[in-house]
Amino acid sequence: MKTATITDAVSFFYENDRFLLVTHKRPDGDTLGSAGALCLALRRMGKTAYLYRNPQVTEKYLGYVAHLFSSEDFAPKKTVMIDLADVGLFPVGFSGNADFCIDHHPTNSFYATSTFIHPEKSSCGEIVLELIQDLCGSITSEEANLLYMAVSTDTGCFQYANTSAATHTAAAALISAGADIARLNKELFRTFSLSRLKLEGMVFATLRSHMNGKINIAVITLDMMEKAGATEDDCDDLASLPGRVSGNIASAMIREISPTHCKISARSSKEVNVSAICARFGGGGHTMAAGCELDMNPDQAAETFRKLFEEALA
Amino acid sequence: MKTATITDAVSFFYENDRFLLVTHKRPDGDTLGSAGALCLALRRMGKTAYLYRNPQVTEKYLGYVAHLFSSEDFAPKKTVMIDLADVGLFPVGFSGNADFCIDHHPTNSFYATSTFIHPEKSSCGEIVLELIQDLCGSITSEEANLLYMAVSTDTGCFQYANTSAATHTAAAALISAGADIARLNKELFRTFSLSRLKLEGMVFATLRSHMNGKINIAVITLDMMEKAGATEDDCDDLASLPGRVSGNIASAMIREISPTHCKISARSSKEVNVSAICARFGGGGHTMAAGCELDMNPDQAAETFRKLFEEALA
Repeated sequence: MKTATITDAVSFFYENDRFLLVTHKRPDGDTLGSAGALCLALRRMGKTAYLYRNPQVTEKYLGYVAHLFSSEDFAPKKTVMIDLADVGLFPVGFSGNADFCIDHHPTNSFYATSTFIHPEKSSCGEIVLELIQDLCGSITSEEANLLYMAVSTDTGCFQYANTSAATHTAAAALISAGADIARLNKELFRTFSLSRLKLEGMVFATLRSHMNGKINIAVITLDMMEKAGATEDDCDDLASLPGRVSGNIASAMIREISPTHCKISARSSKEVNVSAICARFGGGGHTMAAGCELDMNPDQAAETFRKLFEEALA
Repeated sequence: MKTATITDAVSFFYENDRFLLVTHKRPDGDTLGSAGALCLALRRMGKTAYLYRNPQVTEKYLGYVAHLFSSEDFAPKKTVMIDLADVGLFPVGFSGNADFCIDHHPTNSFYATSTFIHPEKSSCGEIVLELIQDLCGSITSEEANLLYMAVSTDTGCFQYANTSAATHTAAAALISAGADIARLNKELFRTFSLSRLKLEGMVFATLRSHMNGKINIAVITLDMMEKAGATEDDCDDLASLPGRVSGNIASAMIREISPTHCKISARSSKEVNVSAICARFGGGGHTMAAGCELDMNPDQAAETFRKLFEEALA
C-alpha cells in the first residue's frame, strides 16, 4: 500500500523478472499503449514480459498489442497494473496479486502493494515515457508508436482539457523517436465503423435544435440502431454529439432502451446546471455533465428536456 | 526579391513603423492568427500596426481579429504579407506594395521585396512564434491564443502529416504562455453550424458502401443542401468524409451541380490511382486525391465510380 517514486519504479523493474502487465476492464488506448510500450522496453532489458490477454480488447486496438499477449501457461513472478485505478476495474477473468501499479487517476485506491502515480499527467503514456527513458535511456520507434497511441487517445488528440504543455512536450519526444503519426492519427481519429458513421449521420439528420441553436436534443431509437447495424461498440462518446452545434448551451442525448424507457445524457456550458435537472428524475452527475432515466418514449423524453432547458435558460 | 533571415526580419520590424499586416484571400486560422499575434507584438514594441480589413473573414474567426482591423484612413508605411504565397492570393480589395512577406509555403513566388520563408514549418504560426520571441523576448497570453489558433488549424489539431516534433514543441510553449486551449479547441474543432451537421448527417445516413467497406461513395444533392439549409460556407473538406469508413481504400464525394451535371472528388490509399481515373473524364490531381466533372445525374455518377473503383481493385 505504499507510494513509489520514479527511483522505486526503476528498482522494481531492474530487480525483478517475469512480468505480467495488466490492462483495465474495457481497455482503451492509454492502458493498452502504455502496457505495450513498457512490455517492449522490459524485453530490451533482457526481461521476460507479457500483456494479460484482456478479452475485451476491441478491433480498433487488437493489431497494436495482440502479439504481446501472454500464453495460457505463462507463470508471472510480478504483476503490474497499468492505468488501473481500482480492483473494480480488473479485466475480465483476472485474479491475482497486484504487485505494482502505474497510474494517473486521482481516484486510484492504492490497492496494489506499491503504486507509482502522477495525477497531474494527461495519461499513463506520459508516465511510462519517462519511466522507459530512465530504464533504457531511449525509446524505440515501436514503443513511440504505442505511447503516442496512449497519449493521443486519452487527450482526444490533444483537444481535451487534460492536455498540458508537458503533453505536447511528450508528443514531440515521441515523434523525434520515430512515432508514425500520419498512420496513427488516421487509424485512431479518422477511421470509424460504417455502423457508427451511419448512426451519427441519423443523429444529426434528425437533430432537434431549439432557441436558435442554444438547445440541441438528439434521439437514438432502437430502430435507428437496427438500421445502422450498430452495437454498443459503436456508441462511444455519443453524449457529446448534440453539443457540437454552434451556439449550443444545453444538450441532451436521448437513448431508447425500450418503447417506454429512455436513458438521457445531458451536457451544458456553465449557464445550465444539468445535474440539478437530472436529479429531479433520480439521476445526477456534474453541473455540466449528468444523466438520468425516464419511463417515457423518446419523443416524450425529448419534449420533457426541451421544456426543462427552456425554463433553465429563461 | 531577396530572402530574409531571422536577423533581417527582426531589423525590418525594429527599423520601420506604421505596419499593415495583410492576410490571404479566403483567410484561414493560420493567416489570421499569425497576423493578429504579430500585430499585438508590434504594438508592445511601441509600433503602430493594424490588420488589413479582409472582407472574407468568416464568422468562425471574426471575433479573434476584428478588433485589430485598420480603419479606412490608415496610411501604412510598410505592408507585410502573412502566409500569402503569391499575388493571386492577395485578399479582395487589396492593391499595394508587398514590402515584406512571412510564409511557410514552398510554392511562395517571392513577389515581395523581401521574403522570410520557412517551408519546413507546419504553419506561419510556428514562424511568427519564433519571430515574436526574438522581437519581444516573450509571448503574451492573447498572442499565444492567436498563435495556437494558427498552428492548430493548419495541422488539423496536430493530425495532418505536416505536424512535426517542432509543432508540438511550439504548442507546449504557447500553453506555457497562457493559451486557453480548452476554449480554443472547443470553438475551433468541436463547434459546427447546424446546417453543416445536418448535411454531414445526411451524407453518412445515405452513404453507399461496397466491397465490405473498401469502396465508399457519398452523394450530396441540391435537395440535401436545401433541406440542411447549407451554403458553400458549410462545405469545407467534404471530400474526406466517405474515406472515414474503416477498411476504406477508395472513396468519392459526388456533388450535384445541376440535375445533369456533377462534381466528383476522389480519394484513395496507395492501391488505387484516382488521378488516372479522373483523367478519363478530363479531370486530374494527385494519385491519392483527384477530381473531375461528369454530365450525369448523381446516381449515374455514383454508379460510374463504383464500377471504376471495383475494376481498379479487381
